[in-house]
Amino acid sequence: MILYDYFRSSAAYRVRIALELKGLEVEHRPVHLLRAGGEQLEPDYLAKNPQALVPALELDDGIVLTQSLAIIEYLESLRPTPRLIPQDPELAAKTRAVALAIACDIHPLTNLRVGGYLAASLNASPESIEAWRRFWILEGLQAVEKLIAPKPFCFSAEPTLADVCLIPQLFAARRFAVPLDELPRLLSVEAASLELEAFKRAHPARQADAE
Amino acid sequence: MILYDYFRSSAAYRVRIALELKGLEVEHRPVHLLRAGGEQLEPDYLAKNPQALVPALELDDGIVLTQSLAIIEYLESLRPTPRLIPQDPELAAKTRAVALAIACDIHPLTNLRVGGYLAASLNASPESIEAWRRFWILEGLQAVEKLIAPKPFCFSAEPTLADVCLIPQLFAARRFAVPLDELPRLLSVEAASLELEAFKRAHPARQADAE
Repeated sequence: MILYDYFRSSAAYRVRIALELKGLEVEHRPVHLLRAGGEQLEPDYLAKNPQALVPALELDDGIVLTQSLAIIEYLESLRPTPRLIPQDPELAAKTRAVALAIACDIHPLTNLRVGGYLAASLNASPESIEAWRRFWILEGLQAVEKLIAPKPFCFSAEPTLADVCLIPQLFAARRFAVPLDELPRLLSVEAASLELEAFKRAHPARQADAE
Repeated sequence: MILYDYFRSSAAYRVRIALELKGLEVEHRPVHLLRAGGEQLEPDYLAKNPQALVPALELDDGIVLTQSLAIIEYLESLRPTPRLIPQDPELAAKTRAVALAIACDIHPLTNLRVGGYLAASLNASPESIEAWRRFWILEGLQAVEKLIAPKPFCFSAEPTLADVCLIPQLFAARRFAVPLDELPRLLSVEAASLELEAFKRAHPARQADAE
């Protein structure tokens, strides 16, 4: 399998963590979102992912899967252990809800293409774009703080899809200088996660394309 | 079960379609997002859903589930037929990817709270907020047009999670006057879906709180 990846993308980082937790090996092929006007906009990549976003996972049969959460659910079918979605339906729903609270309601508001639109079409200053990012990240994380029940991971003694999404979002929060000190549950989950080799190996700074 | 609902919310509309397709009955409790500064911000509702968004599904044991896609995956466990997520893992991934392309990369950029921020903090005019909404909806739907393979629903002869997400997004697209004429596949899926009683009954105009 080939993972079209970008070291700093939260969504790609989620898939890297899931792959590492499950012990699945893939070829990483970087798609640089800033270089040459954005490698994600090149025709070869658009043919694989018409959304022009990373990540995408190309399977051995040539089929390309997109959307980090859909890819992780696929990996869960491919290699069911360790389980990232709890078996209990209510706990599975709470786990997916935290993943979606991040993947729908925080991350897409703060990514590169949205910042580009705010600057180009709404004439937003760099400072107001930073404030926009901080606002949505903090607002979203404050809700996630109330949705989880750390033991020590978001919902259980082992990491799940919720942790897989939370850790990259906390990484992005730090990049954008979001104050995290009033989110003690999230910080405790982060501390527990970053002790695991899988989370360490998936970290943006450890990727071949890191700058 | 109690569905905290709002007739015009895309995310609530998705859950209504899934409930209807599965023949599950719930009590609908409207949360008016505009009335009295937003009923979703009242303490009773915030205690149920700290994200202050609809929908939320309160189960008979009092547990409250949030995030429309997490709720629909829960309903899929509760009542597995008709199946909304295909059994084949690759087709399941493509189905979820379309749902997520809409639920992550279109809808959250265009909802009420984001429009409010653009107006209040970035001083955006009503016209530029409308243009913002049209831009993200059209851009996202153009990608979805390439991701699906109608037969006559997005991926198969029966509706799946992809259709459950697409129809509410097309409803929102029309509200915001997004041009849809160059999206023939999406329009063919919409025509097939709107013939089904489940989609008709879930329509915003048919809800008790419709205005």
